[in-house]
Amino acid sequence: MKIIIQRDRLIQGVNDCLRAITSRTTLAILTNIKLSVEKNGLILTGSDSDISIETFIPAEEAGDEIIEIKQTGSICLKASLFSEIIKKLPQDTVELEVKENYLTTIKSGKSEFKINGLNANDYPQLPTVEKDNGYSIPVDLLKTIIKQTVYAVATTETRPILTGVNWVIEDGKLTCAATDSHRLSKKVIPFITKEQKINIIIPGKSLEELSKILIDSAESVEIFFTKNQVLFKSKNIMFYSRLLEGIYPDIERLIPPDTKTTIVLNTKDFLKSIDRASILARENRTNTVLFTSNNEMIEISSFTPEVGNVVEDIQASQFNGENLKISFNARYVIDALRTIDDEETIIRFTGIMRPFVLKGAGDDSITQLILPVRTV
Amino acid sequence: MKIIIQRDRLIQGVNDCLRAITSRTTLAILTNIKLSVEKNGLILTGSDSDISIETFIPAEEAGDEIIEIKQTGSICLKASLFSEIIKKLPQDTVELEVKENYLTTIKSGKSEFKINGLNANDYPQLPTVEKDNGYSIPVDLLKTIIKQTVYAVATTETRPILTGVNWVIEDGKLTCAATDSHRLSKKVIPFITKEQKINIIIPGKSLEELSKILIDSAESVEIFFTKNQVLFKSKNIMFYSRLLEGIYPDIERLIPPDTKTTIVLNTKDFLKSIDRASILARENRTNTVLFTSNNEMIEISSFTPEVGNVVEDIQASQFNGENLKISFNARYVIDALRTIDDEETIIRFTGIMRPFVLKGAGDDSITQLILPVRTV
Repeated sequence: MKIIIQRDRLIQGVNDCLRAITSRTTLAILTNIKLSVEKNGLILTGSDSDISIETFIPAEEAGDEIIEIKQTGSICLKASLFSEIIKKLPQDTVELEVKENYLTTIKSGKSEFKINGLNANDYPQLPTVEKDNGYSIPVDLLKTIIKQTVYAVATTETRPILTGVNWVIEDGKLTCAATDSHRLSKKVIPFITKEQKINIIIPGKSLEELSKILIDSAESVEIFFTKNQVLFKSKNIMFYSRLLEGIYPDIERLIPPDTKTTIVLNTKDFLKSIDRASILARENRTNTVLFTSNNEMIEISSFTPEVGNVVEDIQASQFNGENLKISFNARYVIDALRTIDDEETIIRFTGIMRPFVLKGAGDDSITQLILPVRTV
Repeated sequence: MKIIIQRDRLIQGVNDCLRAITSRTTLAILTNIKLSVEKNGLILTGSDSDISIETFIPAEEAGDEIIEIKQTGSICLKASLFSEIIKKLPQDTVELEVKENYLTTIKSGKSEFKINGLNANDYPQLPTVEKDNGYSIPVDLLKTIIKQTVYAVATTETRPILTGVNWVIEDGKLTCAATDSHRLSKKVIPFITKEQKINIIIPGKSLEELSKILIDSAESVEIFFTKNQVLFKSKNIMFYSRLLEGIYPDIERLIPPDTKTTIVLNTKDFLKSIDRASILARENRTNTVLFTSNNEMIEISSFTPEVGNVVEDIQASQFNGENLKISFNARYVIDALRTIDDEETIIRFTGIMRPFVLKGAGDDSITQLILPVRTV
């Protein structure tokens, strides 16, 4: 293997793969990045065996030479070391050459590194995913869906299945849902579905990494599913994630069909108000804030013995139904409100000990559900 | 105590005091910030008993009212809580009022906090430092001196005295020196001295915090010394630090008077080259880089078994004396070069196992000395 490559493109490709590489792995070779030079470009691969990322740097792009390929071949190099070296090299181009015994030279200007590599054949095979019969989704929409659902996954492994987001594709809809059993997020969008129903659970961590690696654009990502893997394929990036096994709980029965009180509030004012109240609520460890309606006049308050209390008033723009007093975890409401882009938020309450629902006033695609806290 | 104050000014003042406040203190009241309203403004105080910071916010500045003072008085409030509250309040002004039993209301718009405070009389007295017969130094120069010396203090407490910077004022000079016994930095500037010689040791941590709190400007800072305290006084900030007790080692005898080899190198190229070589050197734990001269042609290299090696060439702009091969800790040379603003750096060697000296080519005020590493 021997190439001369534009340094900035190499850095970008390596950075993308680094998202999948961790030093806390039981399989030593996975601390490496795999480089494979083929006739038309360089493929970089990183993996922690849950997530695998493959990026492709073409030899030529729009008539410009990105890589001068002198000899094809492949090598595995310690990812953290290789990444730091190429970031600090003095010139705009880098020469990479694999010599005897996997010794790899990295040359740029008057700087020359010789690094011991490993046989690329020892690197684990990526999952086999057939790249036909896929689904297509715009990058921006995919990132929005992730943002609006992934925050609600469980962060503890008590019920591993709840650390993932449930994706269901059927009847012309994609439904994504997450819950940690205290709160729930659900997003539904119209989707071109196929004959076969898809019902899978994608680890929350995979979706977060996917969201970071995808550059905002109007381009589309293709999605392919197998029994235990999902592949997100964009122009030059293949992102594989294993799926969680098991049956996701039926979330529809958790969403209350009836409503006793409906309140419409300015999203930002409400968010800031809860955020301030939570300064004191956090001191209390339970992070509990009290929400009291007196028709349009809403009072947000929190009391922590020995520290103090806080009282805030906000004016609702609409109020329908019974007045109520309800306590909730400030963190859950803050997380939910941060995913709402609408100027106004609708809150539907069904009783003081029953879950309540938040939605953007102009957006029926998201449902954010929160369980209240029982206070004495 | 009752005032209405501009929120941004209050936040700035509190932020400055927070630099001295730590939650890891044995004296519980020091987790508080002290507020004292006097006729002409508000004094804020924070302290960890090593460092104490007092900031003053005037009631009026350039004809603008900063604080409306309704009643003088004082209170202690939990610093982290108070700081977070004022940062998140909705309006540009804040009303602070101390009521019965030190209960303090913090009001802004429709947000109202009631926080339990503590009696300000229980807050420790700041050190008494007589504010006459001080020394004056421009802020920019003070910050440069700190930057060029403090990096070399010891970070372990084996010899506590080495965690400080030695300041000596005599014979028309201020000499600041720091050493961790592997490297040494010395800065000498012309200084208006007084009859009495000053020879003190200021904790490195204090100087670092002082440097962060001072805003770059051509204004001057006044410095006052007592036996065990130093006070840096700028326009609205008083920064107190305790001094380290003991006798600082005589550093002059460590600086070699003779020179066997003198080399002049481009500062940035040399720094980047050592920085790259240290990527591999760090893998070796000793962080050792080898410097080999062949007249003007300098080779920087590092070898770590099992990982690999790196070789870099740089061209010296001047070379005088004997050729040499010397090993050193890359970190020490990087730290020293970062304090040199000159385009070129002069290195003076006196032998392969003797300390070498780095200086900016056009700056005789700094001496950076480094002990080489014995390699087999």
